[in-house]
Amino acid sequence: MVDTPSITMKDIARDLGVSVATVSRALKDSPRISVEKREEIKRYAREHYFSPNIIAESLRKSKVQPIKIIGVIIPQLSHFYFSSILSGIEEEASARGYRLMVAQSRENYEDEVKICQAFSESKVCGIIVSQAKNTTKYDHFQRLLKHGVPVVFYDRICTGVNASRVVVDDYMGAYAAVTHLIDTGCRHIAFYGTTLTMEIGKNRYNGYRDALLKHGMRPDDLLIRNCDNRADAEAITPDIMSLATPPDAFFAVNDDTAIGILYSCKRMGYRVPEDISICGFTNGERAVACEPMLTTVEQRGTQVGEEAANILIDQVEGALPKDRVEKRVVRTRLIIRGTTK
Amino acid sequence: MVDTPSITMKDIARDLGVSVATVSRALKDSPRISVEKREEIKRYAREHYFSPNIIAESLRKSKVQPIKIIGVIIPQLSHFYFSSILSGIEEEASARGYRLMVAQSRENYEDEVKICQAFSESKVCGIIVSQAKNTTKYDHFQRLLKHGVPVVFYDRICTGVNASRVVVDDYMGAYAAVTHLIDTGCRHIAFYGTTLTMEIGKNRYNGYRDALLKHGMRPDDLLIRNCDNRADAEAITPDIMSLATPPDAFFAVNDDTAIGILYSCKRMGYRVPEDISICGFTNGERAVACEPMLTTVEQRGTQVGEEAANILIDQVEGALPKDRVEKRVVRTRLIIRGTTK
Repeated sequence: MVDTPSITMKDIARDLGVSVATVSRALKDSPRISVEKREEIKRYAREHYFSPNIIAESLRKSKVQPIKIIGVIIPQLSHFYFSSILSGIEEEASARGYRLMVAQSRENYEDEVKICQAFSESKVCGIIVSQAKNTTKYDHFQRLLKHGVPVVFYDRICTGVNASRVVVDDYMGAYAAVTHLIDTGCRHIAFYGTTLTMEIGKNRYNGYRDALLKHGMRPDDLLIRNCDNRADAEAITPDIMSLATPPDAFFAVNDDTAIGILYSCKRMGYRVPEDISICGFTNGERAVACEPMLTTVEQRGTQVGEEAANILIDQVEGALPKDRVEKRVVRTRLIIRGTTK
Repeated sequence: MVDTPSITMKDIARDLGVSVATVSRALKDSPRISVEKREEIKRYAREHYFSPNIIAESLRKSKVQPIKIIGVIIPQLSHFYFSSILSGIEEEASARGYRLMVAQSRENYEDEVKICQAFSESKVCGIIVSQAKNTTKYDHFQRLLKHGVPVVFYDRICTGVNASRVVVDDYMGAYAAVTHLIDTGCRHIAFYGTTLTMEIGKNRYNGYRDALLKHGMRPDDLLIRNCDNRADAEAITPDIMSLATPPDAFFAVNDDTAIGILYSCKRMGYRVPEDISICGFTNGERAVACEPMLTTVEQRGTQVGEEAANILIDQVEGALPKDRVEKRVVRTRLIIRGTTK
């Protein structure tokens, strides 16, 4: 092997005025970089004899800087939305030279505390977390922040801690979905969700309510139900359909619930979307497996993960002040399919 | 929350003019500190509401015993089956006091090599991996084994490396599924899968073939297709249904493909399962979202992950010899739902 001191990705990034992550992505032909930019970077790399010597490269890195580990706490790995967020975190972290330590809280406060503890022992440079459903004390997060370990929350926001966060625009997602239902002629739109307990449920409810008000309709208590899973949706939908004025549309806070409504309505003989329109929220595997395919609000977990990793790494590297509370909102996207007109 | 700035051991040391080590020892009642000094320090700590900082304490502990980290390589985190395996690995590892470092190969050999390298630098005690689809050289795994780092493969087995492995019983899963189709009256059973490239596909094909042979039927080349995703299944199913003797049943190597067959048949006016029976393989979220719900072979990812973590930790701790090649098979389970009679 000829051992010419070769140009590094860092050199290329500096010379072309882009980030190292961009160079790395371009060289891997990532579709996230425009074709022109990719070509420019690849040409420059070629012209400067850039050769990605995998082993040498990482050995070099490891001598210069200690291994940087980000701790990630996931409530449940088998949940599609969370695993897509983890995928986004991993993508961004590995592009920027970080590694991930991953643990599940299993929706359990005690486990969450232990994980924070364990991550701290492992000298993680920061933590990305979505809190467990039953977490109401926040000392474990406060302690990390006090010791200068940045914490970034995603999805579920911990209102008791003033730290950076990434959420999807639940309010606008719901607003857009309900507006679409109204625009396609629906006049009695039911809401299935968890209105009170979680921030997410509240924001989606508010989006629903405001879309109605904006179009001169009023939320009807009879059409607002506390329901966030398929089994419950299948159980209560026959009841709501027997009202004097039954709904002609449903907006559900997740796809699982929407699919419960869908099959419940079909069993009762209603046609979807001719008689009843349905819109969900998530856009996971289920949404395209049901018939008709589900109109839904895409939550874009990968983007949420990427943003969270970006904030954290920027704080670790000083591109953002460590004590800066960065709040980012990932925009949702309404995917119109067969369950709405 | 009252946020009194709490006193640290450092503060106590400074205030009393002793070293931090002395304070720490005194608070632990170490006989290396005189009784008088101990009492003085403890009294001061009490009076100033000193509460032992858990994180600092465990940092100290971590010096005593090194943190044990398992490296996990996942081809794609957003794939349901892989995230359920990761969940099982995490569950078992955390119960046994290990932490996980997780990375995605994104089905890319070069990334896989880099990750092995990175894990190795991070001093992982072992690696659990499902190889990337395009991996055909195995030096990176061999190197780890040579350095005494145990490697356990899951799902996709690397035939080029003699290491421990956990797979599901693909052969028996397929055999049971096809036997069920035969038992319910099907006589022309098509197979959609990848027969040649991957071990998994081969085993599932063999199970299909042997179930036919066992029941006095012969595999028919016209009914065996190379197809492992929904789009392709929707594209080729009208063609196979136009054969002189079309199939009356389909066995597909995954749920996604099975759902493509299902909707393709329904669009052509066939009733499922009255005219056509369909069986998939996976049992993910999709399988219960389609209509009718899918009969499928459950792959039990969580169990695969748990077994893999168990083997690795047993090898690390010496309960299994490090050079022992342990092969475990997780049994599949046929879940009969609405797409078969």
